[in-house]
Amino acid sequence: MTDFSRTRDMFDLPKGVIYLDGNSLGPLPRAATDRMAHRLQNEWGQMLITGWNKAGWFIEPRKVGDRVGKLIGAPAGSVVMGDTLSIKVHQALASALALRPDRRVILSDSGNFPSDLYMAQGIIDTLNQDHRLETPNPTDVLDRIDTDVAVVMVTEVDYRSGRRHDMAAIVERAHQKGALVIWDLAHSAGAVPVDVTAIPADFAVGCTYKFLNGGPGAPAFIYVRPDLAENCRPALSGWMGHESPFAFDLDYRAGSGIDRMRCGTPPVLALAALDAALDVWDDVDMNDLRARSIELSQQFIDGVLARCPDLTLYSPSDPHQRGSQVSFAFQHGYAAIQALIDRGVIGDFRAPNIMRFGITPLYINDTDIAAAIDIIADVMNAHAWDDPKYQNRAAVT
Amino acid sequence: MTDFSRTRDMFDLPKGVIYLDGNSLGPLPRAATDRMAHRLQNEWGQMLITGWNKAGWFIEPRKVGDRVGKLIGAPAGSVVMGDTLSIKVHQALASALALRPDRRVILSDSGNFPSDLYMAQGIIDTLNQDHRLETPNPTDVLDRIDTDVAVVMVTEVDYRSGRRHDMAAIVERAHQKGALVIWDLAHSAGAVPVDVTAIPADFAVGCTYKFLNGGPGAPAFIYVRPDLAENCRPALSGWMGHESPFAFDLDYRAGSGIDRMRCGTPPVLALAALDAALDVWDDVDMNDLRARSIELSQQFIDGVLARCPDLTLYSPSDPHQRGSQVSFAFQHGYAAIQALIDRGVIGDFRAPNIMRFGITPLYINDTDIAAAIDIIADVMNAHAWDDPKYQNRAAVT
Repeated sequence: MTDFSRTRDMFDLPKGVIYLDGNSLGPLPRAATDRMAHRLQNEWGQMLITGWNKAGWFIEPRKVGDRVGKLIGAPAGSVVMGDTLSIKVHQALASALALRPDRRVILSDSGNFPSDLYMAQGIIDTLNQDHRLETPNPTDVLDRIDTDVAVVMVTEVDYRSGRRHDMAAIVERAHQKGALVIWDLAHSAGAVPVDVTAIPADFAVGCTYKFLNGGPGAPAFIYVRPDLAENCRPALSGWMGHESPFAFDLDYRAGSGIDRMRCGTPPVLALAALDAALDVWDDVDMNDLRARSIELSQQFIDGVLARCPDLTLYSPSDPHQRGSQVSFAFQHGYAAIQALIDRGVIGDFRAPNIMRFGITPLYINDTDIAAAIDIIADVMNAHAWDDPKYQNRAAVT
Repeated sequence: MTDFSRTRDMFDLPKGVIYLDGNSLGPLPRAATDRMAHRLQNEWGQMLITGWNKAGWFIEPRKVGDRVGKLIGAPAGSVVMGDTLSIKVHQALASALALRPDRRVILSDSGNFPSDLYMAQGIIDTLNQDHRLETPNPTDVLDRIDTDVAVVMVTEVDYRSGRRHDMAAIVERAHQKGALVIWDLAHSAGAVPVDVTAIPADFAVGCTYKFLNGGPGAPAFIYVRPDLAENCRPALSGWMGHESPFAFDLDYRAGSGIDRMRCGTPPVLALAALDAALDVWDDVDMNDLRARSIELSQQFIDGVLARCPDLTLYSPSDPHQRGSQVSFAFQHGYAAIQALIDRGVIGDFRAPNIMRFGITPLYINDTDIAAAIDIIADVMNAHAWDDPKYQNRAAVT
């Protein structure tokens, strides 16, 4: 049984704050500061250029990739770290379209995170071959999959509602119809059990600064189905993905397997913080985490709905259809979130009217949830959100 | 007059090492460790998600971009940080080709860094419109520029020989012929005076882990000529380059000017180290730096050639045709570099036979150069490179 009081102690949480925004940016793992200082002073400072080999920087995108892989059911050697999620979406999409040259549809949904859609639009413009992006309602994706679809690109957990796609059904139908699937795990990795082997999506991508706590702008990851990887030609063909980077050949030859999804020089400093963050997962059972997430979410939903009649549940009430966040709709949601932050409960707002709260059992417990409910009820019932000072701030994911 | 003993004190250099590889990875600036710890503990740890606004993470790619811009003659607001140099090459190339839709040639040279060429090959494959990459000898680039060339993409300073292109002549001729120019500053920024305004290249890109000392895998930069920026549609159209990222619109609309070259979430941790590294430049005059680089390079060349008859100068002997590195050709160069590293002189090797030494006046002085010459002469004249233990290691840029 996972000991969540132990994992909570592994984070440096500010006093007086109940942090319900770990679905946007996870908190600082205590080990990260020392790990980073070591990387700077003992590795970069002392080893200088020789750190690429001596400290293993060159292979770290693969080593850290394997650690992330364990959390998503990926076999060793099938995940690599680097760049940002948007870039990894591009690599997966470009690879998928090249593998389905006779098809023209990228199927996503209107609940997908916009950057994924923007990257698809950029690729479509570049290819100039009459590809088109379709974005039906999330609930209509499954039925829309047909033989004209080259690739289905969905984020499993909707960033606004927290609604979860039935990925097994999507992958099964896509494969029946000859389409490929890109599974965006931004709100899944570290949030819900994921098994890219059992549900054999072709590509999986994700960021590591949300539920994996890698820090602001932490490197992204990409998984490619091992039997598919050798057939992918990444459009972003940088030297680190070359078969032999240090031969300095003039012609690109893709490296073997997932290595070809490497592109430029890896983000060595950021990987140190992420590696420290991944230590937290060593003794966590994802099924325990999921069970605890559902418990805490239910406590939160029940408490808020009982005490805040102005809030409407925007997330699915069935926990199996929900990721690890809870969203409420409220007309003055933006101001209400600002009022909550002022009172130490950090959630966030998503247009047009969504108050979003991440449920992260690694460092949030039932006492936190109870205290958060009290403060939310105070803000809502006293109309604290009506104060003019809460109307005009910027919000960031 | 720039005080180079002061700048030297701003670096944490390991004892017993003469570091002549700052053209590959600059050393650790003393301020970087504290700056990074502050970012982790006081910003990420304490501010959590609110750091995006409170600590200015969101605008930091522009703020740091302006600091880099000062070193390359770019006006404020024309440079932005992020991703890797390979990705920035892609953005510049894709933008340039879209601006010259009737032309099919990407002109580079056989001395360009392979990753730039690989990215071009990836774009050509993707576009599938009969574009082609030409890579003549570096000395033949200028004469090859004609009206079929869409874009000239050259790295000003050759990573192997240190030979410098005459960028003013290349830009002038390219513009006469209606071609665009991408100026890769990987070995120029912080190494030689650069003025992207006086020599009006259309795009300039570079990394920051070499002469700018931002750390392994530090973020890259891109400059776009301000009057051109509004006409560029980046192929990598991520949400941070959107006109209004937090509107979460389903359709991409490019942000204004250089903002559209932003893509995914910025590398906030890495930017802290880079920002600390840029402090070193506050009181450095690039003309002083260049003069000092030429002095030290001449001392190095004269000393080595006088005492090592087996080494041939592979860099141009005319300092005006050379960047801030000195290369020698030697059949057993790989082993010789390993023998030197064992004796505390760190340079590097590039296939097939090049021993490469970076000259970095910020932290290397004439005493270092004299000591390095002594050790190189010992290794060469005692045939220390002939030891079997030096034959089989990996080298990394």
